[in-house]
Amino acid sequence: MRRQRERWCNPAVRVTSGTVADGIREQLFTVGGIPGVLWTPAEGCGPRPLVLIGHGGGQHKKEPGVLSRAFPYVTSCGFAVASIDAPGVGGRPEHPEIKRLVAEMTEREAAGEPAGPAWPALCEVMVTEIVPDWQATLDALQKLDRVGDSQPVGYYGLSQGGGVGMHLVAAEPRITAAVLGLDESDVLISIAPRITIPVEFVMQWDDAGHPRDSMLTLFDALGSAEKTLHANPGSHFEVPDFEIDSSIRFFARHLGSQGAAI
Amino acid sequence: MRRQRERWCNPAVRVTSGTVADGIREQLFTVGGIPGVLWTPAEGCGPRPLVLIGHGGGQHKKEPGVLSRAFPYVTSCGFAVASIDAPGVGGRPEHPEIKRLVAEMTEREAAGEPAGPAWPALCEVMVTEIVPDWQATLDALQKLDRVGDSQPVGYYGLSQGGGVGMHLVAAEPRITAAVLGLDESDVLISIAPRITIPVEFVMQWDDAGHPRDSMLTLFDALGSAEKTLHANPGSHFEVPDFEIDSSIRFFARHLGSQGAAI
Repeated sequence: MRRQRERWCNPAVRVTSGTVADGIREQLFTVGGIPGVLWTPAEGCGPRPLVLIGHGGGQHKKEPGVLSRAFPYVTSCGFAVASIDAPGVGGRPEHPEIKRLVAEMTEREAAGEPAGPAWPALCEVMVTEIVPDWQATLDALQKLDRVGDSQPVGYYGLSQGGGVGMHLVAAEPRITAAVLGLDESDVLISIAPRITIPVEFVMQWDDAGHPRDSMLTLFDALGSAEKTLHANPGSHFEVPDFEIDSSIRFFARHLGSQGAAI
Repeated sequence: MRRQRERWCNPAVRVTSGTVADGIREQLFTVGGIPGVLWTPAEGCGPRPLVLIGHGGGQHKKEPGVLSRAFPYVTSCGFAVASIDAPGVGGRPEHPEIKRLVAEMTEREAAGEPAGPAWPALCEVMVTEIVPDWQATLDALQKLDRVGDSQPVGYYGLSQGGGVGMHLVAAEPRITAAVLGLDESDVLISIAPRITIPVEFVMQWDDAGHPRDSMLTLFDALGSAEKTLHANPGSHFEVPDFEIDSSIRFFARHLGSQGAAI
């Protein structure tokens, strides 16, 4: 898919708005039809490590869980951080297939039934579209002076951002460190051995949708020599704030901090 | 045991030597017959949080694994840090019962057999002696101006230091945060629900002596509302160095850093 996109179109970053606040420059952009946002230090210029953040299911590129990571990555580490809308959410057009599958799952869940075959179908649609979206975005961002292609790239994503992130990381050699988690499936277990970069893997001990044993099996299946499992009590939505600090340390260790605080 | 010790003797810290290097004051001391070491900032005075570090089996109060934690706790956080020799090692007299049990275990292990009943017996002897030793040491250290009794107390211990640490933490309300791990047993699982302070729980994914399932069961049994599991690949002896940094953050969060770096 990436090859095809590169051959037929190689879209550049088109900045649609820019603001500066609290030492952070925020630029909304599109790459082809993909809406995204780039955060960099307000005063920074020249190349710097880039962290891509994948948002959760039904969320968008500027959800609170993205912002709460992106801002300290910029201010503490001097990184560039980018987030894009997944197909069908945020600034992207409605996606009939995704809408149909989500409706089917919602209906089944309301009836107390498991999500059924709509769940793996939704994951497949999402991955098929967003992996090349991320790769095209990365191609374009690396052409910007303030990102460049000489610095390492990291990926952060939990839940839907974790599942699609595992596919992206397995396919994309430019990404050299990743925080992943809050998702598991047989498909993810099958691709996990292809992931060999350092991974911080986050799970919630009482995640009703992702049983402990399956999460631990997925962690075990990762091919990375350096992988660290962080498990905390609570539901899918209760990842403690101190994991943000931990992810800052993880990326500073692997991408090389540009800031004074690390 | 603690009550008896307090009634019949309430030994003070007797400093036997002191040195200053790299911004750290190191004082060797005894409390009753217990040899210990206290590290504090060279320039510091007045009360400060205290971290007690329990060493590993067959080791001593100044083993490398203790020093590698103690020094950054002092320099990064401004904490006081103390370590004592467990019965039968370091500066303490030979302990015939411990020596006999260790010899029995060593012999069985050399023959390829499990440690057998000597292991729980050794744990029981160790815990019975070192928990009141730690409590007497804490009583005495809190009378020093540069420690005081107004600041929180943490405990760090893995392996033997983790096992005895769980007993200590369960018995000692002055300890309000602990890094524990690399040990499990049915006894530990039975006392774990009594531990309710924040715990960072460290396990090694490929620890031949402590199976994953047992470690996970022990983590699950901890009564703490805030408990975080950190699991890394490798053997019992291969805890990655970045866990030192994580423990600094953990104690800074829970004890309140005195330093500028956190």
